[in-house]
Amino acid sequence: MELGLVGLGKMGGNMRERIRRAGHTVVGYDRNPQLADAASLEEMVAKLPTPRVVWVMVPAGAPTEQTVGQLGELLSEGDVVVDGGNSKWTDDKKHAETLAKKGIGFVDAGVSGGVWGLQNGYALMVGGDAADVAKVQPVFDALKPEGDSGFVHAGKVGAGHFAKMVHNGIEYAMMQAFAEGWELLETSDVVENVTDTFASWEQGTVIRSWLLDLAVKALKEDPGLEDLRGYAEDSGEGRWTVEAAVDLAVPLPAITASLFARFASRQEDSPAMKMVAALRNQFGGHAVEASNGKSAAPDPTQHQKG
Amino acid sequence: MELGLVGLGKMGGNMRERIRRAGHTVVGYDRNPQLADAASLEEMVAKLPTPRVVWVMVPAGAPTEQTVGQLGELLSEGDVVVDGGNSKWTDDKKHAETLAKKGIGFVDAGVSGGVWGLQNGYALMVGGDAADVAKVQPVFDALKPEGDSGFVHAGKVGAGHFAKMVHNGIEYAMMQAFAEGWELLETSDVVENVTDTFASWEQGTVIRSWLLDLAVKALKEDPGLEDLRGYAEDSGEGRWTVEAAVDLAVPLPAITASLFARFASRQEDSPAMKMVAALRNQFGGHAVEASNGKSAAPDPTQHQKG
Amino acid sequence: MELGLVGLGKMGGNMRERIRRAGHTVVGYDRNPQLADAASLEEMVAKLPTPRVVWVMVPAGAPTEQTVGQLGELLSEGDVVVDGGNSKWTDDKKHAETLAKKGIGFVDAGVSGGVWGLQNGYALMVGGDAADVAKVQPVFDALKPEGDSGFVHAGKVGAGHFAKMVHNGIEYAMMQAFAEGWELLETSDVVENVTDTFASWEQGTVIRSWLLDLAVKALKEDPGLEDLRGYAEDSGEGRWTVEAAVDLAVPLPAITASLFARFASRQEDSPAMKMVAALRNQFGGHAVEASNGKSAAPDPTQHQKG
Amino acid sequence: MELGLVGLGKMGGNMRERIRRAGHTVVGYDRNPQLADAASLEEMVAKLPTPRVVWVMVPAGAPTEQTVGQLGELLSEGDVVVDGGNSKWTDDKKHAETLAKKGIGFVDAGVSGGVWGLQNGYALMVGGDAADVAKVQPVFDALKPEGDSGFVHAGKVGAGHFAKMVHNGIEYAMMQAFAEGWELLETSDVVENVTDTFASWEQGTVIRSWLLDLAVKALKEDPGLEDLRGYAEDSGEGRWTVEAAVDLAVPLPAITASLFARFASRQEDSPAMKMVAALRNQFGGHAVEASNGKSAAPDPTQHQKG
Repeated sequence: MELGLVGLGKMGGNMRERIRRAGHTVVGYDRNPQLADAASLEEMVAKLPTPRVVWVMVPAGAPTEQTVGQLGELLSEGDVVVDGGNSKWTDDKKHAETLAKKGIGFVDAGVSGGVWGLQNGYALMVGGDAADVAKVQPVFDALKPEGDSGFVHAGKVGAGHFAKMVHNGIEYAMMQAFAEGWELLETSDVVENVTDTFASWEQGTVIRSWLLDLAVKALKEDPGLEDLRGYAEDSGEGRWTVEAAVDLAVPLPAITASLFARFASRQEDSPAMKMVAALRNQFGGHAVEASNGKSAAPDPTQHQKG
Repeated sequence: MELGLVGLGKMGGNMRERIRRAGHTVVGYDRNPQLADAASLEEMVAKLPTPRVVWVMVPAGAPTEQTVGQLGELLSEGDVVVDGGNSKWTDDKKHAETLAKKGIGFVDAGVSGGVWGLQNGYALMVGGDAADVAKVQPVFDALKPEGDSGFVHAGKVGAGHFAKMVHNGIEYAMMQAFAEGWELLETSDVVENVTDTFASWEQGTVIRSWLLDLAVKALKEDPGLEDLRGYAEDSGEGRWTVEAAVDLAVPLPAITASLFARFASRQEDSPAMKMVAALRNQFGGHAVEASNGKSAAPDPTQHQKG
Repeated sequence: MELGLVGLGKMGGNMRERIRRAGHTVVGYDRNPQLADAASLEEMVAKLPTPRVVWVMVPAGAPTEQTVGQLGELLSEGDVVVDGGNSKWTDDKKHAETLAKKGIGFVDAGVSGGVWGLQNGYALMVGGDAADVAKVQPVFDALKPEGDSGFVHAGKVGAGHFAKMVHNGIEYAMMQAFAEGWELLETSDVVENVTDTFASWEQGTVIRSWLLDLAVKALKEDPGLEDLRGYAEDSGEGRWTVEAAVDLAVPLPAITASLFARFASRQEDSPAMKMVAALRNQFGGHAVEASNGKSAAPDPTQHQKG
Repeated sequence: MELGLVGLGKMGGNMRERIRRAGHTVVGYDRNPQLADAASLEEMVAKLPTPRVVWVMVPAGAPTEQTVGQLGELLSEGDVVVDGGNSKWTDDKKHAETLAKKGIGFVDAGVSGGVWGLQNGYALMVGGDAADVAKVQPVFDALKPEGDSGFVHAGKVGAGHFAKMVHNGIEYAMMQAFAEGWELLETSDVVENVTDTFASWEQGTVIRSWLLDLAVKALKEDPGLEDLRGYAEDSGEGRWTVEAAVDLAVPLPAITASLFARFASRQEDSPAMKMVAALRNQFGGHAVEASNGKSAAPDPTQHQKG
């Protein structure tokens, strides 16, 4: 089939390549003309046979919203727009409603696989009406890994990004699990070969997993992870997972702890712990210091501690 | 080589079978004579050539301590005892010291693999002196999975069980990660095919793992997990992981949250939440009820709530 | 001064009483005519001198939105509406904008004090323009406790409810702190007199507080809290606190843990822990059971446990 | 009555003063001769009438153990030793058994009050046999605050320190509650007067407490807490609280989160978050960088993020 693809960064570019290898035609558009197959969105649309299928692979939020809006102008009844970016699932309904006014279908696709997807395939979680999903199915089949899994039509519009969001929430806690275990092994001196221990877990254990394989790869490249700072960004999905859980009254302690650990990793100094320090000073030592006018360090063995 | 094996339950029995398939001789002893190859520990020891290697595979705590003590009586200088049970790593040093008085070596082996180990092999984390480990190596090679990983000599006595303990701590948080994600999907009505969504994650995603495969298997056998209670025991390893972390001042929020979720799952009613309810009553409604002598349900829209 | 007061439930009724005791005139309206001083909102407004001040004390969400909307119809330029309910701080801006179109001021007031407020005074956290706040100040002075504290003009519109929201978040974690401590004392048999121990803390300790006083009162009324279920509702503020923190990337582990403990307290059975149980079955016992066709309880001492 | 008091640091020195003000005689000993009333433990003991009561107020662990051991040599049947330090409750039984061999009684006393105790009195949680406690009661009465509370005979030996341990666990979570709330207010720009808001909470609110008073005092001395680092030590009690909870299978999420926040506050860089960063690199960007030999920063809008 023929596909319009908007956004040809590393992710979109690799996906174009994988789709082409499966024998489909891709007309790609990107703001960077060196990456693009068409000079404009208009030209891209014009090159596609009807009903057209256009896959949007640009950053979530304003860029996606803008691109979906423009496609709403350019496309016609019976066409389908796929949002394959990391959009918040609540945005999908808005996009679908905007497009539905012109009879244009909308499908949301959560995509996992990262830089390994070109080679291994991309896992796809898809939401939308069955008729719309069917129009995109050949592309989904091209992108997904070989085998029985790697693709699900999870439900109506929004279900794809919701499923991807939960996937990422799980991912956060799994990463945190390995991270905590690694820190404990590193801090203790009981296990002498931490990298070897991690590597040994790759077979036969309950925790064998792709993330463990990646951890071992990282540890072999940089034992002790000396070259890295303990600093981790978060993308929106982790936050949205916690928001959804709070909204639904679902307790999510491990996933939330993982999100908070990332927040804390980005703080130069913890404001909360300043307050804890201030309180300890107040009931333990500060009043004494003030009373004799000195700021000598309090004697830790004699003070009230808490 | 020839091995004495004490404890022939499902775990020990399967291990005997796997070691024999590799061409070694196993003299097994169990309190249940129907499972045993020797009628007594004494007979088992008598049947082994020197230097003897005896693998203990009985429950942690008193049974292991007792068996190690008896073997200390029966074995001689140069022999080696392996504790393959789920012992606490701090017990290992005690066992090693007891045996060392007679020149008997001690190796601790954390074993992962469960009921799948016979078929897939057992992951082994081993602690002890190199000379002692070497005497057991043919058995380790028979038990471990094929391939490069699945075995590590992690360090001195105690390192094997410490590594296994951390493995299980990681396992707790990974299980909790899938559990929380599943609950969120089940509680929300956005994703219609939760089991299919889990199944789709088995390929191409960041979270693909053996535990995910098991989750999918469980969901296919019992969609919605209707046949199960939300009740989970914990073995010692999770608790010891948290204890070790507290001792070393390592923050372990996700693993600890996973342990606490298991504790809570076993409570008929939460004492802590009785106190929260009591406090809410005190500042919200109870005083009002008392003041007019009625115990009518407080009006939730008008009370102070917190 | 003269005040219109909408909503005369237990909270609003007590506030009317405290304001009147301070010498002010209150014209109250409630849907329940037995509580009301005016037969309709229109009548209430007609009885007030200009510039009018009307305090809304109805449930957050739709009731408050509806009442503010009606007052927007009835009031005039220079009048002020106070929302003293438990509204989400993000609603305040919308209400203020609606009213501002007619030149009507808006003040949001977070109110703490519960059933004890009539006697002790209500703590007030207020947001809005200084000129609007000034028009309500005599009422704030009447409601607040005696002494220097108990009132703050925290910032612009929304700041009052935001401050109240954070107050409640702190409250959640403080309640959880006492609850956890109490459960630990109750579960251990080391301390024989748990209620006496709590009571002893009321003076001289670092944790002395009004919540502790309430805990002691509750324990004296019902030692062991036998009459209560471990079940706790949450009002919106705890959830909004966590949402705000997630939005601002502020780690909030103790407050969030307290919220999640309430969520969990309301579950008959934990779906997440069903999944943990399912996974333990899968790698520990279920496969064994399936292989011999029996569903006998697995032998816990011999299985892989995790 | 007459009391021997070992350890005259700020805590012990203030306690001596408060006991003397109540009309009792205190013979104090300290390694620092400028603080001491007796030149040696022996001299101190010799100055006391029988049955002697000696209060030990030295750091927990080795110093306390050593002092109790020496007193065991010097004292006689019918005498009583009080350990008022921050000892672990499990140490008490050992000390009691050592002393019991000579018929010397032992009482453990958890003491709260810090630098404010001289003025306000010290809260006391006491464990031991009733007859032993009775011999010390006049001193307890002198130390405790005026009023009905501030003293409890909590149970047998160990119960005093156990109660104090739980008190401190509660204290940790209460401090964390205020700390988290303060950070949220500081990070958001909705509330303009954070210190005033905290101060307003001192009356009429659910969270009014001594810790809140101390927080307000700290904020008034140093608005924004600019002079402090977000760094907090922990004394043993918080760790022991978590250990006891893990041992008893009591979920303690808020208290444990508070302890972990202190651990994290003392890390220059988080090892765990290095691992999270490493994993994000592995599945997101690093492989791509490696493949073209450049180490250019990955394009965050195009990568798989998680």
